[in-house]
Amino acid sequence: MLFHVRMDVHLPPDLDEAVRADLIAREKAYSQRLQRAGCWPHLWRIAGEYANYSVFDVGSIDELHDLLAGLPLFPYLTVKVTALATHPSKVVAG
Amino acid sequence: MLFHVRMDVHLPPDLDEAVRADLIAREKAYSQRLQRAGCWPHLWRIAGEYANYSVFDVGSIDELHDLLAGLPLFPYLTVKVTALATHPSKVVAG
Amino acid sequence: MLFHVRMDVHLPPDLDEAVRADLIAREKAYSQRLQRAGCWPHLWRIAGEYANYSVFDVGSIDELHDLLAGLPLFPYLTVKVTALATHPSKVVAG
Amino acid sequence: MLFHVRMDVHLPPDLDEAVRADLIAREKAYSQRLQRAGCWPHLWRIAGEYANYSVFDVGSIDELHDLLAGLPLFPYLTVKVTALATHPSKVVAG
Amino acid sequence: MLFHVRMDVHLPPDLDEAVRADLIAREKAYSQRLQRAGCWPHLWRIAGEYANYSVFDVGSIDELHDLLAGLPLFPYLTVKVTALATHPSKVVAG
Amino acid sequence: MLFHVRMDVHLPPDLDEAVRADLIAREKAYSQRLQRAGCWPHLWRIAGEYANYSVFDVGSIDELHDLLAGLPLFPYLTVKVTALATHPSKVVAG
Amino acid sequence: MLFHVRMDVHLPPDLDEAVRADLIAREKAYSQRLQRAGCWPHLWRIAGEYANYSVFDVGSIDELHDLLAGLPLFPYLTVKVTALATHPSKVVAG
Amino acid sequence: MLFHVRMDVHLPPDLDEAVRADLIAREKAYSQRLQRAGCWPHLWRIAGEYANYSVFDVGSIDELHDLLAGLPLFPYLTVKVTALATHPSKVVAG
Amino acid sequence: MLFHVRMDVHLPPDLDEAVRADLIAREKAYSQRLQRAGCWPHLWRIAGEYANYSVFDVGSIDELHDLLAGLPLFPYLTVKVTALATHPSKVVAG
Amino acid sequence: MLFHVRMDVHLPPDLDEAVRADLIAREKAYSQRLQRAGCWPHLWRIAGEYANYSVFDVGSIDELHDLLAGLPLFPYLTVKVTALATHPSKVVAG
Repeated sequence: MLFHVRMDVHLPPDLDEAVRADLIAREKAYSQRLQRAGCWPHLWRIAGEYANYSVFDVGSIDELHDLLAGLPLFPYLTVKVTALATHPSKVVAG
Repeated sequence: MLFHVRMDVHLPPDLDEAVRADLIAREKAYSQRLQRAGCWPHLWRIAGEYANYSVFDVGSIDELHDLLAGLPLFPYLTVKVTALATHPSKVVAG
Repeated sequence: MLFHVRMDVHLPPDLDEAVRADLIAREKAYSQRLQRAGCWPHLWRIAGEYANYSVFDVGSIDELHDLLAGLPLFPYLTVKVTALATHPSKVVAG
Repeated sequence: MLFHVRMDVHLPPDLDEAVRADLIAREKAYSQRLQRAGCWPHLWRIAGEYANYSVFDVGSIDELHDLLAGLPLFPYLTVKVTALATHPSKVVAG
Repeated sequence: MLFHVRMDVHLPPDLDEAVRADLIAREKAYSQRLQRAGCWPHLWRIAGEYANYSVFDVGSIDELHDLLAGLPLFPYLTVKVTALATHPSKVVAG
Repeated sequence: MLFHVRMDVHLPPDLDEAVRADLIAREKAYSQRLQRAGCWPHLWRIAGEYANYSVFDVGSIDELHDLLAGLPLFPYLTVKVTALATHPSKVVAG
Repeated sequence: MLFHVRMDVHLPPDLDEAVRADLIAREKAYSQRLQRAGCWPHLWRIAGEYANYSVFDVGSIDELHDLLAGLPLFPYLTVKVTALATHPSKVVAG
Repeated sequence: MLFHVRMDVHLPPDLDEAVRADLIAREKAYSQRLQRAGCWPHLWRIAGEYANYSVFDVGSIDELHDLLAGLPLFPYLTVKVTALATHPSKVVAG
Repeated sequence: MLFHVRMDVHLPPDLDEAVRADLIAREKAYSQRLQRAGCWPHLWRIAGEYANYSVFDVGSIDELHDLLAGLPLFPYLTVKVTALATHPSKVVAG
Repeated sequence: MLFHVRMDVHLPPDLDEAVRADLIAREKAYSQRLQRAGCWPHLWRIAGEYANYSVFDVGSIDELHDLLAGLPLFPYLTVKVTALATHPSKVVAG
């Protein structure tokens, strides 16, 4: 089941440098774990912004929410989720 | 080069039925031609809306515009284009 | 799986009276069929507006989209879908 | 009498951990007391967001306001209330 | 029970003159009936706009919706309803 | 002369408790003085929000501004003023 | 008493040419009458838009509304009124 | 003097084909005349939209308005003008 | 050359009192110097808000920007500039 | 390949003066290096605002993002990127 997600990151510019680096490192590790597990098939950087478009592939909405709420950066994120249905013109598997 | 595109379709409810069916058929053929050509790798229906999220893979912005402006439904569309960069946490090729 | 849906109805005031009555009757029958089937557990009128808040209970996003796109009033609707997860404070089954 | 409520929680990321935990615990207890009392029949987590959709069942608007204003998290909330009327197509009691 | 209502009127400029005059006359009569019945205590014109702020005093939300949906101009209105609670600083009865 | 005013209060959650209590007490006293003086005839709490709808009755716009700018909570307010004209359907004096 | 007004004109592009010319001529005559009467002291064209910023000087809000509602173009206008108070830094009479 | 302008074109999809072609041809000729005259130095198509970003170089605001209001497509345009000042970091003449 | 400017002031409520008083005094002096110089002909307080509508009369856009950026309150302002053209119905010099 | 970029700068008014001066100096040097390299052909100050409109000329979207994310002021910026295609009426090379 596919969900489109936009994430905007709002890290305070005056955040302690070590805290920032640790957050970003843990976020990357967490994200790459999910990507390798196959539930985060698409992840793109929105050009010019500290934001991304992603597509998640999950078994339930609760699973989606737990994955997103578990992001180390979650407290600093604005997140918009959109449920994706199969498009009638789609020729190849998503 | 990847571009994220949101398309919202605004077909007048009182559009002649034959005109509507023709438009939609031509749109589907046009879209499937581009998908097979590899420049429209992702196309999802936004659940509950006559709208889609797509990702286009093109060689230039002019090419992207021509592909979008060539859509049979273009006169009835609201289109939002977002340029996609590679995300630093991306593990597998987009 | 639960989805919150807001539907705003935009029927042109000058729509032919018979067409309007038929549309509304078919919409009501369609909606009540789904309610009895258990996939439309909640349906409330937004006070003062030709709009409603609903909750759908479906097995997949495609099923949700097909149910919504099948509404007789769909061409006259603005629809917003929100995926609902279980709330950690929820005491009784949703 | 039913009211639809959207609550968005804005807890500062740098809030003292103990204060946060206490707030969330008191919020949960408060909410579960109201749910058991029957005045908070529906409570769903908006997937991906620190927000919820709820439906309150109260005897008056003052009662609704007092319940909401009494939420331990109230100072950190953005709240939107919508009055819900009975929908003409509703087959089963709300 | 008090509800604040904003109504914006969107009459097409090319509406048949007789139809317009009849609509407005029926709207005025309907509104004045409700005002005399005491359920429409406040009605002000928003300066410069074909819109009004009103306060309704009703026994239930269903009653409010029926009153609003019964307005002859309802098909041409955008309506926003806000539930009003007693203000803690209010010295005189609303 | 009547003006409709919406006031949204944004008190920082971490404001010193004594400062908060003093501000709110002075605000209440100030508001009740104006209500008794007849220039603040209507004051309602927007259900679920730290906000109010009010109607002021003043002799000039400067008087209105001075009354609003004089509110102890003014530095923490978002204020929207709307000039109210007499509605052609109004049966009883506002 | 001064009111700042923004007016946006929405004349349908396919409006009959003679009707358009007559409307615009009557609007100009009406506006110039009010300007000479001193109640429309400022009138500027918003560069690039079929819109204007104006300042009206009137004795009451009802007078303001009647002047605006009397504009021949009123049915085609979006109007926003803002009440203007004397600015504490203002050195010369407005 | 430089002005940034965004123009969005809203041609009705059912506009007579000949009228459309004539409008677009006249618009192109008009635009190219201004470009050659040097008052329209920059004109870019917003990818995916029937819209453009332009920069105009004019001697006065009235000149700018007349140029824009003279566009054959003007009745079908939404236009947003932004005045451009010299940027303190600008190394080469604009 | 005339420019319409809206300025919204966002002074933090907890700004040191002396700093606030000094800022406001310098802002007033600066503004009155420009008004006497004739480049700030109109300045009105938006009723109920810490904001103003102004009209500037300047020789160039760079001059306008420097005047605005030089305001002591500039770091605390949100500013919107609109270029004003002569209105075709204007009877008296602006 | 051309991209239109709007940048809004949000430097906290109470930022340490030396930090501010250093940031702005590094931003200017960085920007001028890119301008001389030809990838930042247009840079204009939006009159009255701490914001600019720019046009970037880059070989890829990743290059664009790296250039923008590398701006010393990036943590204090809101950035909006728009892809620019060649306009069919454009007479001279962009």
